[in-house]
Amino acid sequence: MRFSPLLDELIKSLQILPSVGPKSAQRMAFALLERQRSGGRRLAHVLDEALEKIGHCRQCRTFTEEDICPLCANPKRAQSGQLCIVESPADVVAIEQTGQYLGRYFVLMGHLSPLDGVGPEELGLDKLEHWLGDEAFSELILATNPTVEGEATAYYIADIAKHHGVSVSRIAHGVPIGGELELVDGNTLSHSFMGRKHFDNS
Amino acid sequence: MRFSPLLDELIKSLQILPSVGPKSAQRMAFALLERQRSGGRRLAHVLDEALEKIGHCRQCRTFTEEDICPLCANPKRAQSGQLCIVESPADVVAIEQTGQYLGRYFVLMGHLSPLDGVGPEELGLDKLEHWLGDEAFSELILATNPTVEGEATAYYIADIAKHHGVSVSRIAHGVPIGGELELVDGNTLSHSFMGRKHFDNS
Repeated sequence: MRFSPLLDELIKSLQILPSVGPKSAQRMAFALLERQRSGGRRLAHVLDEALEKIGHCRQCRTFTEEDICPLCANPKRAQSGQLCIVESPADVVAIEQTGQYLGRYFVLMGHLSPLDGVGPEELGLDKLEHWLGDEAFSELILATNPTVEGEATAYYIADIAKHHGVSVSRIAHGVPIGGELELVDGNTLSHSFMGRKHFDNS
Repeated sequence: MRFSPLLDELIKSLQILPSVGPKSAQRMAFALLERQRSGGRRLAHVLDEALEKIGHCRQCRTFTEEDICPLCANPKRAQSGQLCIVESPADVVAIEQTGQYLGRYFVLMGHLSPLDGVGPEELGLDKLEHWLGDEAFSELILATNPTVEGEATAYYIADIAKHHGVSVSRIAHGVPIGGELELVDGNTLSHSFMGRKHFDNS
């Protein structure tokens, strides 16, 4: 025997969460049943409501329960004329936390990966092209991840932008602030040499 | 800004799960929203139902949605007259998988831990005493964990059993099967010496 049918089903259902196997699912189910009944029921309700209501922003594709996300709806964000392309909503949050960037975003929800069936359409690049056609952006900032797929996606989008005459930039890659040179991998180090800037000591 | 209010709430709610912090909760929320909408809604419903319906078996205290769990309800289980005391429902499953034991269980749902406010009453030991008074068990097998708290709990229960004239045993501790002696800790090794058995080569 295993556990009671309902408990078995709970343990099985919890395993759809990423990196949760049978053992962790069991631990989670016990923790909820033993100590977190009210929190667990709250989780059940929030989860149900979130999966029911949260969709994608009509303009930038990030997750939101509104038709248009707060960032796209903010008229101040349109003033800079900049559009930053990122892979995921988590990247938007990371960039927002720097407080440096005041433009708008376009969230790809992934990167080009033909082998997994992720092509330009899955990333909403047709939507992006429409947007570039409708609005005159001053700059497109490519902030996809510095991975092989992220770079390929950035090149692909740069190509689209060129057709629309929008100036394109890529975020800088190099040695992280606070990092030690000897601990940085060779690829990053060579990027930081290629991307060096003249020291302005005037 | 963080995410949209509902997404923020989902990420916060997921953090009640054991060893899930802000980053894992975020990853879980995204995974559910991106790829697992139907599985996620199923999880929400099962979780709600489980927390609503699953309680403790009236007799052995394990988790079950019935009044009496299937093991306690099985008349064959009562025949051996044995009662095995374990700390958690997971221990019941582990012992059941061996196929060796055919008696009934009593699940403490923890161990004695006065500093955390877990005393005999929280472990249902009053219930166990009633049971020992009502029924004549042939043997009480103490299978609490071989930790300081588990041992203390075992001693406490052995004391109760003595008052009821029930014979008590403790599961054997020693070198695990398939383990290598040099990798076993000293405490375990000294247990395995103290618990040695005469070799019957007749």
